[in-house]
Amino acid sequence: MARGKSAFYIALLHFPMRNRRGEIVSTALTSMDVPDIARTARTYGAKRYFIATPLPSQQHIATVLRDFWFSEDPSSTRRQAMELVHICANLGDCYEEIERLEGKPPLVLGTSARDGLPYPLVDWPEARRLIAERPVLVCFGTGYGMADELLQACEGVLPPVKGGTEYNHLSVRAAVAIVLDRLKGVNHGRHG
Amino acid sequence: MARGKSAFYIALLHFPMRNRRGEIVSTALTSMDVPDIARTARTYGAKRYFIATPLPSQQHIATVLRDFWFSEDPSSTRRQAMELVHICANLGDCYEEIERLEGKPPLVLGTSARDGLPYPLVDWPEARRLIAERPVLVCFGTGYGMADELLQACEGVLPPVKGGTEYNHLSVRAAVAIVLDRLKGVNHGRHG
Repeated sequence: MARGKSAFYIALLHFPMRNRRGEIVSTALTSMDVPDIARTARTYGAKRYFIATPLPSQQHIATVLRDFWFSEDPSSTRRQAMELVHICANLGDCYEEIERLEGKPPLVLGTSARDGLPYPLVDWPEARRLIAERPVLVCFGTGYGMADELLQACEGVLPPVKGGTEYNHLSVRAAVAIVLDRLKGVNHGRHG
Repeated sequence: MARGKSAFYIALLHFPMRNRRGEIVSTALTSMDVPDIARTARTYGAKRYFIATPLPSQQHIATVLRDFWFSEDPSSTRRQAMELVHICANLGDCYEEIERLEGKPPLVLGTSARDGLPYPLVDWPEARRLIAERPVLVCFGTGYGMADELLQACEGVLPPVKGGTEYNHLSVRAAVAIVLDRLKGVNHGRHG
């Protein structure tokens, strides 16, 4: 089983999330999150892209969407990306599946658009180093972000992505793309 | 009028594009491109996000989508991003509008997922330097990418984004996010 550099996983979580009033909710799947994030995951060499929601009806929708694109011709680049998509109920399922595949549990990293959270921060150079060394699962929230109990369950949280402005309302599709490029991108002409 | 660092513009072009058979087509607007890319543009301080299509029916659809989100409460973060969206017919319109705003024409940079194109390559460090110095317009294609006549009209083309794999089929929403982070992102823990 491949280890080290290639043991990189991502998860898109739908519960427990915050809504705009800070309440805890289960968010609905956004259909574009299935192919967009799958293509990003494939570009950056993720081994699996977990879509986690505890609601059977939402799991069903995710499965129908994945299978729709997976039914394309084998030469379809969308189909190649869909091979990475695994649908499950929650973070625990992702964790157990990675442990089964890798023979050891992953380091779990959270993400947030918020500054100053009371959780251990894992900066970008440190995260890049960790990914080169051991299995890592990077988790992304939906709605208005991951609930505290989820962030607490992570061993560390990545810094918010900054674009030089005060505006921090990226779509999760854009945030996943940027985070994966910061963690795994090459040929960017930077060092570190 | 602000110059230098803030005179950074992006355009999403729909004609002339290649389709999967390499034929020249006008692509249809993808509705998610309007809010997703607007939020990315706002995050990275772009002054405008041009959506260019020569088809009046497609311009109408883009306008309806933009106005729908723009009608939200002024505190809406989506509305704040929609302020950047300008709908026009083609690259020439974008160029003229930037020249009007800045008092000088922009440097126009193209993007492509393909390696080895016969156009001048502007690497990432050089592009970051240019953006700090003068107005720059970065163009993104749709469908299977910008036609040669469009790439020829650019003064340079950015390198394809690489994620350490052979797969190069990012969504344009993801590609815009990654390119803007490479050009304007901060706090990534890298140098250069």
